[in-house]
Amino acid sequence: MREINTNGKYSAVFGAYAEPIATVAPGEVVRLYTEDAFVGRLTRADQVPKEVRGDGNNPQTGPIYIEGAEPGDTLKAHILDIEMARDWAWSCLAENMGGIVASAATRLINEPLEERVWMYKYEDGMFRNSENLYFPWDPFMGTIGTAPGGGEAISSLVPGMHGGNMDVPDVKPGNIVYLPVNVKGAYFSTGDCHAKQGQGEVCGAALEISSYITLKFELIKNKKILWPRIESPTELVCVGSMKPMEDAARIAYVELLEWMIELGWEKYEAFQCMSQEVEVYVGNIVNPIYSLVAKIKKDIAYRCSNK
Amino acid sequence: MREINTNGKYSAVFGAYAEPIATVAPGEVVRLYTEDAFVGRLTRADQVPKEVRGDGNNPQTGPIYIEGAEPGDTLKAHILDIEMARDWAWSCLAENMGGIVASAATRLINEPLEERVWMYKYEDGMFRNSENLYFPWDPFMGTIGTAPGGGEAISSLVPGMHGGNMDVPDVKPGNIVYLPVNVKGAYFSTGDCHAKQGQGEVCGAALEISSYITLKFELIKNKKILWPRIESPTELVCVGSMKPMEDAARIAYVELLEWMIELGWEKYEAFQCMSQEVEVYVGNIVNPIYSLVAKIKKDIAYRCSNK
Amino acid sequence: MREINTNGKYSAVFGAYAEPIATVAPGEVVRLYTEDAFVGRLTRADQVPKEVRGDGNNPQTGPIYIEGAEPGDTLKAHILDIEMARDWAWSCLAENMGGIVASAATRLINEPLEERVWMYKYEDGMFRNSENLYFPWDPFMGTIGTAPGGGEAISSLVPGMHGGNMDVPDVKPGNIVYLPVNVKGAYFSTGDCHAKQGQGEVCGAALEISSYITLKFELIKNKKILWPRIESPTELVCVGSMKPMEDAARIAYVELLEWMIELGWEKYEAFQCMSQEVEVYVGNIVNPIYSLVAKIKKDIAYRCSNK
Amino acid sequence: MREINTNGKYSAVFGAYAEPIATVAPGEVVRLYTEDAFVGRLTRADQVPKEVRGDGNNPQTGPIYIEGAEPGDTLKAHILDIEMARDWAWSCLAENMGGIVASAATRLINEPLEERVWMYKYEDGMFRNSENLYFPWDPFMGTIGTAPGGGEAISSLVPGMHGGNMDVPDVKPGNIVYLPVNVKGAYFSTGDCHAKQGQGEVCGAALEISSYITLKFELIKNKKILWPRIESPTELVCVGSMKPMEDAARIAYVELLEWMIELGWEKYEAFQCMSQEVEVYVGNIVNPIYSLVAKIKKDIAYRCSNK
Repeated sequence: MREINTNGKYSAVFGAYAEPIATVAPGEVVRLYTEDAFVGRLTRADQVPKEVRGDGNNPQTGPIYIEGAEPGDTLKAHILDIEMARDWAWSCLAENMGGIVASAATRLINEPLEERVWMYKYEDGMFRNSENLYFPWDPFMGTIGTAPGGGEAISSLVPGMHGGNMDVPDVKPGNIVYLPVNVKGAYFSTGDCHAKQGQGEVCGAALEISSYITLKFELIKNKKILWPRIESPTELVCVGSMKPMEDAARIAYVELLEWMIELGWEKYEAFQCMSQEVEVYVGNIVNPIYSLVAKIKKDIAYRCSNK
Repeated sequence: MREINTNGKYSAVFGAYAEPIATVAPGEVVRLYTEDAFVGRLTRADQVPKEVRGDGNNPQTGPIYIEGAEPGDTLKAHILDIEMARDWAWSCLAENMGGIVASAATRLINEPLEERVWMYKYEDGMFRNSENLYFPWDPFMGTIGTAPGGGEAISSLVPGMHGGNMDVPDVKPGNIVYLPVNVKGAYFSTGDCHAKQGQGEVCGAALEISSYITLKFELIKNKKILWPRIESPTELVCVGSMKPMEDAARIAYVELLEWMIELGWEKYEAFQCMSQEVEVYVGNIVNPIYSLVAKIKKDIAYRCSNK
Repeated sequence: MREINTNGKYSAVFGAYAEPIATVAPGEVVRLYTEDAFVGRLTRADQVPKEVRGDGNNPQTGPIYIEGAEPGDTLKAHILDIEMARDWAWSCLAENMGGIVASAATRLINEPLEERVWMYKYEDGMFRNSENLYFPWDPFMGTIGTAPGGGEAISSLVPGMHGGNMDVPDVKPGNIVYLPVNVKGAYFSTGDCHAKQGQGEVCGAALEISSYITLKFELIKNKKILWPRIESPTELVCVGSMKPMEDAARIAYVELLEWMIELGWEKYEAFQCMSQEVEVYVGNIVNPIYSLVAKIKKDIAYRCSNK
Repeated sequence: MREINTNGKYSAVFGAYAEPIATVAPGEVVRLYTEDAFVGRLTRADQVPKEVRGDGNNPQTGPIYIEGAEPGDTLKAHILDIEMARDWAWSCLAENMGGIVASAATRLINEPLEERVWMYKYEDGMFRNSENLYFPWDPFMGTIGTAPGGGEAISSLVPGMHGGNMDVPDVKPGNIVYLPVNVKGAYFSTGDCHAKQGQGEVCGAALEISSYITLKFELIKNKKILWPRIESPTELVCVGSMKPMEDAARIAYVELLEWMIELGWEKYEAFQCMSQEVEVYVGNIVNPIYSLVAKIKKDIAYRCSNK
C-alpha cells in the first residue's frame, strides 16, 4: 500500500489548476492523510471559531491525477478504510453556520447565535464530551470529488455535480463512490472526515477529525455519469446537490430512476417501483448548496438487472 | 371495541363545520373504515385517472368529536391496527401529479406524462402487479389530523400544523400520533391508507387501499403543541409541512429540538446532539405542501430526560 | 351608491360558511368600510404589537353574495375608489413577521427582533412620522378574494388561487380585479387597505389604515380562470401565490402566457414576446405564501388581439 | 479612447487563472467588443440551438487587470455606451432552458419543448422578426464581474457575489456597477449583450447580439462590498443571486438596507422606509442561480445621507 504525502499542502477548490500531489494508477491502493475542516487550528473549547477559522477552511487532500482518466469516463473510488489520525474531535456552533439559523445564503437581519465549541475525547469506543454528549466512531468523508469541466474551480465548501462538500454519511468504508471524469487525469480530491454526523449536519459541524483514508481507484471507460453515485453492499445511492431542497431531491430521484433504466427497467415501471420503495434523506442542510440522497435496495433494483 | 359507521359519507376538508360522525371518549377503542384516495372508483387498469378522479378525492373518515378536548390540549391517537378491507390496491400516474413532473404548484409548460394505472393483487404476503412490481403489506395512514383553528377548513389534499395529508410512513400501527387540539372536540379525521409507500410518494400515488383502522385516543390537558409529533417504541419523530422543502426540514428540526428541551436538554447541547444523531427523511414531495420528518432514537433523547 | 354596513362584524377566512353581509347585483355600485389589519387596536406608538394583535387579525369585510354568480364564472371587481376613513395610519415590526427575519414559515432559532411601532399622521398630502419617514397616499387593498371551492375556508392571512392576502399594489383604484367564482354567489370579501406599500411589504407591515372602498361588480358567465388577474388602463397583470418564490413567479408567467394565448397569440410566439417585454415584481415576501406579479403592456399584448 | 482587442479569445469563467487581455488604469476610457452568447454561431432561423451551442457558450471579454486594485477595494465600472456590432440579433428556445420549463436545475421527467429560433433584423429603430414580434433597442450587458476569491473560477453561466451572469437590465449605459475586488488586479470581465430583455429572461434567451461597450473604471480603496451594487442617475440598486428565489430577494433587500445604513439611516427606520418604498424585480429566472433586484429612489434614500 502506497502512502501519499501531502507535505502539509491542501487545496481549497476542486479544479484542475493546481499541480497534482500524486499520480495513481487504476487498481493501486493508496493511503492519504486528511486534515480537519479548520486545518487543525481548533484544539481547545475556549477558542472562538470565527477567530481560528480563517479563509483556509475545508482543506482538501489532492488533486490526485488518475492515470488514463479521460473526460467521459467514470471514476470508481473504493473506500477501503478510514482510520482516526488522533484520539479527539471537535464540533462547534460558528456564526451564521447551520441549517436552522440565518446564514450567508438565507440572509436575515436577526442577530447570530453565540459561538460555542465542544471537544470530544475517544474512550471506550465513544467520542465523549459529557454524560449527555457521546457518540460512536462511525466515520465518513465529508468531501470527495473530481475537477469540474469548463475551466471551473469550485470551492471545497460547495457540493455539486463533481461531488465536493456533500456531507453524505454514505461516503464511508465499504462503499464505492462513482464520480464523473471531466478533465484528463480526473483531479480527484477528498477530505473533511467526520467521526460521526447526523443527517443534515444541522448545527453546521459534525465531529471533525483528521484521518487516514485508504482508497482504491478504478476507471469505467466511456461511461458518462452526470452526478455522483454510491454503491453499498446492499444499496444503490444517488446524491443531488441543489437549492431549493426539492430541486436537490428531484435530481437524486431522477438520477436513481436513470440508474434503474440502465439496469434494464422500463422507465415508468421504475418510477412506479421507486414510488413504493425508495428512501430519501437529507445529506446536508448547511452548505451553500444542499445535498439530498435517494437510495433503493439492490435486491429490488436488480429484479430487472441486465448485469 | 366500537365500530364507527361512516354511512358512505366522507369529508373533503379538515375543519369544524361538518357534523361529527361520532363522539368518542378518551380511552375508548374504535374501529373505522377508510375509503381509498379516489373513493373506490379506480378498479381496473384500463381506466383513466383523470376521468375517475373527480373532485371528491382523498375522502376522510370523520370528523370525530373527542369528548373533553379543548383548544390548548394535545390529542394522542394510538394506532393499534390497520387491516386491509380488500385484497387489492391500485397505483397510478395521474396528470400533473408527482414530485419529478410539472404540476399545479410547479407550473411549467412542458407536456404532462401519459396517465397509467397499476393494479396490485394480494397473494402470498405480497401485493403483486408483475414479476418486477411486488411489494409487502406495510400499511400506514396517509392522512390524520384535527380541525385547524381560526375558522379555517383545510383541503384533505394538504398537510399542515393540523396534520392532514402528510403521507408519512411513520403514521403506522404501534405508533402514537400527537396532534394539536384547536377547537372544542378536536374534530379528528383520518384516511388515505397506503399498503406500501416509499419516502416521498414520488410518482404521486402509493399502493392505495381501503382499510379498517383501530385507534385509541387520549388527551393531554393544557399541553399545547404546534405541529404533529409521532412516538414509536424506539424513536421521537417530528413532521414539518411547508415549502420550499428546506423550510419543512427546518420546522421538523426545530420541533424536535424543542421536544428535547422539554425533556430536559439545554438548548445548544440538544442542537449539538441532533447534529450528530438526527435522521431526516422526505415524507411527501407530491402534495401542495411538502412534509419532512426528523427523528432521534429515544435512548439518545432520554439521556436528559425528566420523564 | 349603496352603503354596505358591516355592523362591526368581520370575517377571518375566505369561505362560504358565514352568512353573507349583503347581496349585490352585477352593475350595482357599493361602498364598504374596511377595518385595519389589527382591527383598530393599535393606536399609539407605545403599544406592543404582540399584545394588541390577538387572534383576530386581518379582518375582512364580507362575504358578499353576488347575484347570479355560479362556479365556472369569473367575477370582475372594478375598484372605483379608496377613501381614507381616518387621517392616520400605523406600521410596525411584529415578532417573527417580515421577509428578512426568521418567521413561523422559515423557522430558525435566532432571537426575534424587538417589536416597534410607527404612527403616521396625514398632513399636506403625506403620511408623516418623522423628517425621514413620510410617504404619499397611494392606497390599495391588501386582500381581495372569493370563496375557494371544495368546502375550504382559507385564512385571511394567506393568498392563493382565490385571491386573499396578496398584498399586491396593483389592486388599486382604476383597476379591475378578475377572480374565479368557485361557489354559488361567489362570497366576495376584501379588506386590509394600505395607504402606501413597497414591493414585498418587507418589514411585515405597510401603512395600515381603515378605509372606504367603492366597487362595482360584473360577471363573465361561463369563463373560468384559475388565478386572479388584474387589468389596469395600460397593462395586463397576473398574480401567482406559492412557495418557493420561483413557483409563484412561474404561475404568474404561465397565467400571463395563457392570457396572451386567449387573446390570439401562438403559444411560443407569446413566450418569446414575454421573454423580451414582461415585468415581474414581488407582491409580498411576508405572508405564509408569497405573491409574485407578472405584467405586460396592453399595446404589446394586443398586437395579437381578437378582442 | 482605447480599444481593447480580444483577438477572438474569450473566457468561459470568472477567475484569476487566465492571462489578462489588457491592463487598464483607473480613469481610462476603454472600448471592448463582446461576442454573443453562442459565440456568433447562430445566424439562421433554421439552425438547431443544441447543435450550434457547443460547450463554449456565454464567452466573456476579459479578464482585464485593473491597475492598483487590491482585495478589499471596490471597483466602479461606469457604463458609458453600448453600440450594436451588427444589425441583427437572435433569440431561441433551447432544450431544458427557461424559467417555466424543466431544466438541469429543476430536473423533471417531462419531455423538453421543441427548439426554435427567432431572427431579428434592426430597421426603423426596432428589432423586427414579424408583425407581432418587434422590440426597441434597449441594450444592457447580461454579464459583468470580477474574479471571485479563494482560488475559485466560476462559470460564465452563473451569477454570484462576484457579479457574473446576472441578466439584470439595470446593467446599462448611464449606470455605474460596483463590484467587489477579491484578487489583486480585480480580473474584470463582461459580455453577453442583450438588445432587449424582459424581467426574468423567461424563455431562456433575450435578443442576443454582439456589441461594443465603452467603460470607465474607478477604484474605491479599502471599501469592501459583498455583492454587486448599481447606481443609476435616480436609484440605488442591489442584486442578490441565490436559490430559492426568496433567498435571492432577501440578499437584495438586506444589501440595500446596509447601503442605507452606510448613508446614515438608523437600521430599523431604514427597514421601515424600505417596506413602503422599495421595488423588487426578477432579473433572471433561467440561470443556474436566480438574480433578484431591489431598488429605491435616491431622493428617498438620501433623506438620511451623510454624503
